[in-house]
Amino acid sequence: MKKQNRFRERHGSIGEMETGPLNSITDVEGVTVGHVTLSDGDCQTGVTAVLPHQGNLFKEKLIATSHVLNGFGKTMGTIQLQELGVIETPILLTNTLNVGTAADACIEHMLARNPEIGRTTGTVNAVIGECNDMLLNDIRKQHVHKTHIHQAIQHASKQVEEGSVGAGRGMLCYSLKGGIGTSSRLIPLSHGVYTMGILVMSNFGILRDLTIKGRSIGQELKKKLLDEWQEKDKGSIMIIAATDLPVTDRQLNRILKRTVTGLSRTGSIITHGSGEIVIGFSTATRIPHEKTNQPIEVSMIHEEEMDEAFRAIGEATEEAVLNSLTTAVAVKGRDGNERPAFTDLLDRFNLSL
Amino acid sequence: MKKQNRFRERHGSIGEMETGPLNSITDVEGVTVGHVTLSDGDCQTGVTAVLPHQGNLFKEKLIATSHVLNGFGKTMGTIQLQELGVIETPILLTNTLNVGTAADACIEHMLARNPEIGRTTGTVNAVIGECNDMLLNDIRKQHVHKTHIHQAIQHASKQVEEGSVGAGRGMLCYSLKGGIGTSSRLIPLSHGVYTMGILVMSNFGILRDLTIKGRSIGQELKKKLLDEWQEKDKGSIMIIAATDLPVTDRQLNRILKRTVTGLSRTGSIITHGSGEIVIGFSTATRIPHEKTNQPIEVSMIHEEEMDEAFRAIGEATEEAVLNSLTTAVAVKGRDGNERPAFTDLLDRFNLSL
Amino acid sequence: MKKQNRFRERHGSIGEMETGPLNSITDVEGVTVGHVTLSDGDCQTGVTAVLPHQGNLFKEKLIATSHVLNGFGKTMGTIQLQELGVIETPILLTNTLNVGTAADACIEHMLARNPEIGRTTGTVNAVIGECNDMLLNDIRKQHVHKTHIHQAIQHASKQVEEGSVGAGRGMLCYSLKGGIGTSSRLIPLSHGVYTMGILVMSNFGILRDLTIKGRSIGQELKKKLLDEWQEKDKGSIMIIAATDLPVTDRQLNRILKRTVTGLSRTGSIITHGSGEIVIGFSTATRIPHEKTNQPIEVSMIHEEEMDEAFRAIGEATEEAVLNSLTTAVAVKGRDGNERPAFTDLLDRFNLSL
Amino acid sequence: MKKQNRFRERHGSIGEMETGPLNSITDVEGVTVGHVTLSDGDCQTGVTAVLPHQGNLFKEKLIATSHVLNGFGKTMGTIQLQELGVIETPILLTNTLNVGTAADACIEHMLARNPEIGRTTGTVNAVIGECNDMLLNDIRKQHVHKTHIHQAIQHASKQVEEGSVGAGRGMLCYSLKGGIGTSSRLIPLSHGVYTMGILVMSNFGILRDLTIKGRSIGQELKKKLLDEWQEKDKGSIMIIAATDLPVTDRQLNRILKRTVTGLSRTGSIITHGSGEIVIGFSTATRIPHEKTNQPIEVSMIHEEEMDEAFRAIGEATEEAVLNSLTTAVAVKGRDGNERPAFTDLLDRFNLSL
Repeated sequence: MKKQNRFRERHGSIGEMETGPLNSITDVEGVTVGHVTLSDGDCQTGVTAVLPHQGNLFKEKLIATSHVLNGFGKTMGTIQLQELGVIETPILLTNTLNVGTAADACIEHMLARNPEIGRTTGTVNAVIGECNDMLLNDIRKQHVHKTHIHQAIQHASKQVEEGSVGAGRGMLCYSLKGGIGTSSRLIPLSHGVYTMGILVMSNFGILRDLTIKGRSIGQELKKKLLDEWQEKDKGSIMIIAATDLPVTDRQLNRILKRTVTGLSRTGSIITHGSGEIVIGFSTATRIPHEKTNQPIEVSMIHEEEMDEAFRAIGEATEEAVLNSLTTAVAVKGRDGNERPAFTDLLDRFNLSL
Repeated sequence: MKKQNRFRERHGSIGEMETGPLNSITDVEGVTVGHVTLSDGDCQTGVTAVLPHQGNLFKEKLIATSHVLNGFGKTMGTIQLQELGVIETPILLTNTLNVGTAADACIEHMLARNPEIGRTTGTVNAVIGECNDMLLNDIRKQHVHKTHIHQAIQHASKQVEEGSVGAGRGMLCYSLKGGIGTSSRLIPLSHGVYTMGILVMSNFGILRDLTIKGRSIGQELKKKLLDEWQEKDKGSIMIIAATDLPVTDRQLNRILKRTVTGLSRTGSIITHGSGEIVIGFSTATRIPHEKTNQPIEVSMIHEEEMDEAFRAIGEATEEAVLNSLTTAVAVKGRDGNERPAFTDLLDRFNLSL
Repeated sequence: MKKQNRFRERHGSIGEMETGPLNSITDVEGVTVGHVTLSDGDCQTGVTAVLPHQGNLFKEKLIATSHVLNGFGKTMGTIQLQELGVIETPILLTNTLNVGTAADACIEHMLARNPEIGRTTGTVNAVIGECNDMLLNDIRKQHVHKTHIHQAIQHASKQVEEGSVGAGRGMLCYSLKGGIGTSSRLIPLSHGVYTMGILVMSNFGILRDLTIKGRSIGQELKKKLLDEWQEKDKGSIMIIAATDLPVTDRQLNRILKRTVTGLSRTGSIITHGSGEIVIGFSTATRIPHEKTNQPIEVSMIHEEEMDEAFRAIGEATEEAVLNSLTTAVAVKGRDGNERPAFTDLLDRFNLSL
Repeated sequence: MKKQNRFRERHGSIGEMETGPLNSITDVEGVTVGHVTLSDGDCQTGVTAVLPHQGNLFKEKLIATSHVLNGFGKTMGTIQLQELGVIETPILLTNTLNVGTAADACIEHMLARNPEIGRTTGTVNAVIGECNDMLLNDIRKQHVHKTHIHQAIQHASKQVEEGSVGAGRGMLCYSLKGGIGTSSRLIPLSHGVYTMGILVMSNFGILRDLTIKGRSIGQELKKKLLDEWQEKDKGSIMIIAATDLPVTDRQLNRILKRTVTGLSRTGSIITHGSGEIVIGFSTATRIPHEKTNQPIEVSMIHEEEMDEAFRAIGEATEEAVLNSLTTAVAVKGRDGNERPAFTDLLDRFNLSL
């Protein structure tokens, strides 16, 4: 990761908890992330894949759940997540009108690795998230093809590129260039130190609401930019949470709900036009696909230990959003539309945080 | 229990699964039930208490959840049940306008046994269910007092009286006399035989819909009774489910949802005026109130083993409703209103099922 | 429709309410249904499209909602349905592994008719339902292509073919051949007579549970068939409900929940492996896509009028399932797997209902 | 109201929207609030009543709904709120162990005014919210009696006292003295100017998290106070929202969810031990209890107008919390426990915001 533009390296820490070594969702053992970025004129979009573990996820599922902050979105796969409390495919992010393509490719990917699907066992539940990148990307052209999905999965590694990359290529954050951001926090409990990792695809908010560490920097920038653009929120945020905390899906769901505290601290009012959806999983327990002869043992933390996880996910979400903002580079796309980079604006107006 | 009027003894089995030894919710180890019946002129009401285990439930909670089939009801305590997935008090059933009294008494009961509540630890979540017995009982008089609640808890035993007793005293079922019914099923899995127990307080339905083993017995009775009464559904059903199956609260919730199959087989269309609420718990895992130093281990069955539990809860619910109907005795109450007993009608019209 | 094999024509009425003139979901003014059936060796699948009205649905949305009976399914589009309470695309049904394809095609369809999508307004929420037809269809081959989706939409008319057609081509019902079925009920209220229409894609249940009008016909058939096959439920049911009742999305949701009463009366225990999802809409109010200057007026029935709608949807669902069973023809598909038609079995064993 | 200690009068405005004339929930036409404050040694508790309109609420209900931010709470009445989307009683707030008493009294209140309840019509759904005031109040003594509830209802007026009054008497906010706070915002839409009013009973948070307008004032105070106390969050917040916006219950629910943005901006991480529940109603449409001959017309704003309501409720919630903090006076209660007032601390340490 290009450290120079990550928020913490340039502007200091967020919150009070320690980060993991990479300050990334990939600090959670086994998690990897891959991008495919498409950037060519009117095509400014891409794919981001999050792999929850490196084994066969269909055969060894992870406890998972989702939470809808605002349901004006087209995320796919959450009905089964909620019902069964497990995830069995990579999580794929892309633009709104390519969710079908991504689902198709995800199914292909799973079929190739699991010849028993549709033969001796049932089908598979693809989990696809999306945001709308129509300002910078010609979204009507559905530029993402199945090969891009496969490549994003293949590229997955522990090093996570941030900013205007992958599915975040054409996304906006507080009307500036947004995209992919990640962060993590360590959760010290009496029985061990656990990790909470967050990856966001930011695409929400209007400039005047942007707040960083309590400072209304968005309003400052807006005054300086005057009428350089007119803004209307038409965004979303996808938040992916990974942890190695031993939790049930109910507990994980409680944790996911607290992402909103971090979002709010960056100034979000969770506007109507913004599909805001959180998907999370825990790597602590693997749930076998095949019926077992004995009950499965699930470890869960005592409920009284929740607060540290709540604090961790709020902080990591806040910092991941800020990372998506500070690492993004300016992008010019459809019909010449463009959005500046936050970091460039700070430099241009000689502002420090 | 008066075996002669229980459904199975007189009319044969329901479904295909075996019952527990008592064919009662108390077949689940540790579960007891107590009634207080108030019957005096316009006062035809009472209290039924279900005790999930015989220890200190506040200190050793059980995994629990609830499901709302129809939310036109005033059940109390479900918000916390859903959030934390545990139960920490007896479940108390009474008439709708005495929910407050029952809550008050439940809190008194818990305070007396747990001096740390409100001192060194937080408060306690009373779980109270209700149905409206206004036809036979002068519900406006709020006849149930706190002493009745305490007595119902003290009376709890493994022998469960059914019919026009306890909170079921004034309740109706398919416009006939209803009330308390119970049943159980054994669930044979590869790793053991488990029990699913159901107790219902039936207070729903109109006569013409009553169906038993596929026979429209309600319509037959209606023709014979002609205009002996006019019916309007204003009812509810409370369903309490106990099991020793090792399940998480999510799994238990999936099971509770299937009570509706049993209800439907007795003819219910789940009318508007009917608060239909299911509360369930599993005795398989005790969750300590006090923070533990290590994660808690929860056993859960593999999801592929669910179907037997689904079948069991449907059958037990169906039979518990039928038991509430066949064991109920006729009651005359407020303003001389009365409802006949199903079994008396069968005898009167010389009908057999 | 081939009247001779519809349930009512051959075996008599279900329930007590009157049907609409076609006894079909298309009795609701404006609703049409189209199928594409693919049948060639290992390919036994298809597409069914339900069009809620004949205008531009994106510009004039309908109040809509969904209900999950069992969430082991991959239906797409319900997050937004729940959040915004409106539907803006046709509802498309297909096999589980072609949900992505169907979404892609649905998006294409909407983009072609609405040039402002992704330009001056946001994106579009495709609603896709599915069941798993892997026994008869080689589902791994993802036989459905985008052209099939477009054709199904073009073919939509008020005449609804039932049985082994469209997306129902490869589906099973109680281990026999199932598929598409439809039915309707008239709802007489003081201010008008309304219609409730149901279309199901049945793919659930095991033979021994099949019950018709209270008769365990499944067990009778099972005894006669002996070991002709071994059954395991791996199914689902999609239920589409259309009505012209003036209702809010909350009210509509209450109505959709009662589909389960009809399902249960056919013998379903709502098995684990069965994604059972209901999607419904009301044609009574059109909600404009573009912001209005004045508040929108929504008509809703008084809550006390709900019971007739509850009864109607239960009856129509029950009869639609039975229609899917009686109209289905035997299909032979993947690896020579085949499933007999219920009607053929009745004839073969000389049974009448 | 004592203007001198309200937040805005002393420390300036919150957010960017205008307040109503009283900056109070009672700016919504028809809404009144009444308190009974109990303060005597170990007894530091009370009752707060919110009356949604001044007519007979049982006969003319208002559209209403609730949202659970964190369900570790004992609020009563929300099942029916969600199912039917209406409120029919005053909203009563008190301490956690007096919810039963409050329910009892609320039922008495409704019975007295509606002789048809339990006779010619069904029962009534009492809505009771609570927080745990055990630090300052001897909550085990259940000090609130039914007469206090009746008095609070009788005292209701448009002038809302804030701070350590009513049910807020013993409550804490960020470990300082909290309690009742209120605020409002005007929502200018093309078809009229509407009002959003909020009343909170604050009882959550730990000092180090308290943030005001982006400033970590809690950490500043904590350093100055050193070890004057040890803090542990055991709190809750009840948020009551009133509006005259024409909305459906679904739309209102979307609005209530955004209270969290205001809460978060004051520093909350929504801790485990904190039952955080929002109850809201709209005065725009009255829903008659008795069945109507015609459908009911409900006005709803276009969904694209939501953002102003989202912003309004976040700002009003934030300011209501801050008002509860700045208006509260120090209270000494059970076992000599006491909590200082925020305003006193600002004065003591000569701090300005």
